[in-house]
Amino acid sequence: MAVGLHDFPLIPEIKGIRIGVAQAGIKKPNKKDLVIFEICEGASVAGVFTQNAFCAAPVRICHQHLDLAASRYLLINTGNANAGTGKPGLEAAFETCDALAGLVGVKRESILPFSTGVIGELLPVDKIVAAIPDAVANLSATNWQSAGIGIMTTDTLPKGSVRTFEFDGQTYTIGGISKGAGMIRPNMATMLGYICTDIAIETALLQDILKDTVNKSFNRITIDSDTSTNDSCIAIATGCAGNAKIASLEEPLAQAFVAAFTEVMQELAHAIVRDGEGATKFVTVEVTGTREKDDATKVAFEIAHSPLVKTALFASDPNWGRILAVVGRAGAAGLNVDGVQLHINGVEIARNGGRSPDYLEEQGKQAMAPEEIHIVVDLGMGQCSDVVWTTDFSHEYVTINAEYRT
Amino acid sequence: MAVGLHDFPLIPEIKGIRIGVAQAGIKKPNKKDLVIFEICEGASVAGVFTQNAFCAAPVRICHQHLDLAASRYLLINTGNANAGTGKPGLEAAFETCDALAGLVGVKRESILPFSTGVIGELLPVDKIVAAIPDAVANLSATNWQSAGIGIMTTDTLPKGSVRTFEFDGQTYTIGGISKGAGMIRPNMATMLGYICTDIAIETALLQDILKDTVNKSFNRITIDSDTSTNDSCIAIATGCAGNAKIASLEEPLAQAFVAAFTEVMQELAHAIVRDGEGATKFVTVEVTGTREKDDATKVAFEIAHSPLVKTALFASDPNWGRILAVVGRAGAAGLNVDGVQLHINGVEIARNGGRSPDYLEEQGKQAMAPEEIHIVVDLGMGQCSDVVWTTDFSHEYVTINAEYRT
Repeated sequence: MAVGLHDFPLIPEIKGIRIGVAQAGIKKPNKKDLVIFEICEGASVAGVFTQNAFCAAPVRICHQHLDLAASRYLLINTGNANAGTGKPGLEAAFETCDALAGLVGVKRESILPFSTGVIGELLPVDKIVAAIPDAVANLSATNWQSAGIGIMTTDTLPKGSVRTFEFDGQTYTIGGISKGAGMIRPNMATMLGYICTDIAIETALLQDILKDTVNKSFNRITIDSDTSTNDSCIAIATGCAGNAKIASLEEPLAQAFVAAFTEVMQELAHAIVRDGEGATKFVTVEVTGTREKDDATKVAFEIAHSPLVKTALFASDPNWGRILAVVGRAGAAGLNVDGVQLHINGVEIARNGGRSPDYLEEQGKQAMAPEEIHIVVDLGMGQCSDVVWTTDFSHEYVTINAEYRT
Repeated sequence: MAVGLHDFPLIPEIKGIRIGVAQAGIKKPNKKDLVIFEICEGASVAGVFTQNAFCAAPVRICHQHLDLAASRYLLINTGNANAGTGKPGLEAAFETCDALAGLVGVKRESILPFSTGVIGELLPVDKIVAAIPDAVANLSATNWQSAGIGIMTTDTLPKGSVRTFEFDGQTYTIGGISKGAGMIRPNMATMLGYICTDIAIETALLQDILKDTVNKSFNRITIDSDTSTNDSCIAIATGCAGNAKIASLEEPLAQAFVAAFTEVMQELAHAIVRDGEGATKFVTVEVTGTREKDDATKVAFEIAHSPLVKTALFASDPNWGRILAVVGRAGAAGLNVDGVQLHINGVEIARNGGRSPDYLEEQGKQAMAPEEIHIVVDLGMGQCSDVVWTTDFSHEYVTINAEYRT
């Protein structure tokens, strides 16, 4: 049911990155479920992670390892989230790190582990350890699509994005993959996202750019309002392009990089929404005219989370009263309901807090028919705005989530 | 699909109250959709209303009229919410008040109007005005069940509750009706609730008791997290029982009254959840061990709103990881995840933030099988707690809300 999700793009070699994929049999036999990224020495690695207090064991370890050593490998499994597993979960994740570290000859702290899948079951360490040699033997610069497939859970399609840009005669490449279809309301990160580039950039600056860009991409999507325990987003800059290391956002190259990086991040974030569980619509919710940006963000998320709005979207029903009802309860400071306007796909539906005098139900039906829906709510109080992206709520969503573990 | 909702109770005559019901043909022909309550002179009338900024025209008028005059009649229609209708909506509601006021010989301000149904369509004033004489001619002390039916929208059953209690040889009666099945996350009131008693009590005290009791009943239920534009809850004390007017909560009679009143309010609130759109479960979410009560309330509502928890409840799937994930993101101050415990219907599922060592999946399945589910999450940090009531999320919910206007 993915909405407007195109074929996986051709991501060219990004110098300094090799990817290995294997079948560990964690969830189902004969499925790619183990992915290793190999990172060259000297690369800058940045990460943002879930703010969920019940964060998974691998997330806790990533925080530690990023502080302790230069990251040389990402070790990613799907089929088991290793969350809600307490101390045994931490030990299990360390065991898998040790297995990879021993095989490739780096220290444990140079491995960043990631897990996604069912919460609350112990990680099958033996299966993962047994498959690590296959993944290492398989390392290649061209394994991006396999990696996209290897990190899927309830995703129906692998998700990738790539941009190249030229600057002073040098070509730079940014490529990435993401996964996630349910338990999606990222808070400082997404389910899983990995973005690599050959540009050279200081680690601290890359971290700042990642954090800022996440707030314009993964942190502005929601499928079901549930923040995952495993959200992780990693940016890797290998430096193999050979440019003088970027050290400041003021540099023209930094600005070109941020523009392309933001496009990749947004495309990966949108891909998660387009492949959202049971999604039949890709919905952009834009709230404008607030006094503070936080108010716009809050109202947009409340609209995006409302089951009544989402089921109306599923039915292509221009039930605008439900949208105004959410605006009314969302708690924007100083709201004057008589100043609220609502457009859906360009059709003015509400003006001055009520139905527009010229609006006809038939226009609303036409506006709601496409797969891509753009809702704009103008609160008419100020100059701030924000945008979030979401899906509708379908029978398929209930089916997927009622049967997830069966 | 109502869960454990019993037959409408026999509500005896409450002296000072008469109820008239008619068919105005607002939504469908030949359905009861207009209800009038006649209140004797000298009664105390209290009300609490939605906090939604897009509150409906009748809610605005109720606020005004309660300040201006003693209330003598409630005028309630279903099939049209008269919300999102701007100034024409206010004028329409006033017209219906005038029609009733003229017929029964009171002033406009003695009428409290209420509407429920589709948002954003103009109230069919002519149909209501034409049916008012029928409702007035039909006034009787025994019309409670007809009134329960006359205020239904997507409700599948009428909802009523009654308690009598004795004090000093005198019998007092409290009876009420409620409605609501979707757009239910009341904020200071419910969709519609009307509770009458023959006790004599000061209006200001009745208002205090109503507000307090709403916070233990209607304000602790949620079906879909969407606060309605029309929530209204009215308490009427006719004083016909002849007791010395209660003026203080300290009086023993006041305490007996509050206890019985709370039972009626909670039963009416629970009835709304039991008849929630698509409900197959009645779910009690109890959060204990927080430092502040607000934290318990917040965590309980977050669990009750999570689509992932609700679909797992629909599937009778003891997917406790989803509950812990909500606890982790809900933002309780000072949360130590290693101290969290989870019981479902008496079975200990999680201890110390992870799966209980003795827990077997089979026990969880048995615990989740009944229609009535009691979830207890102990955060282990303090002495505060709160309880909310909710439903699961089923295919039927999506069907009802995708097809509501078709």
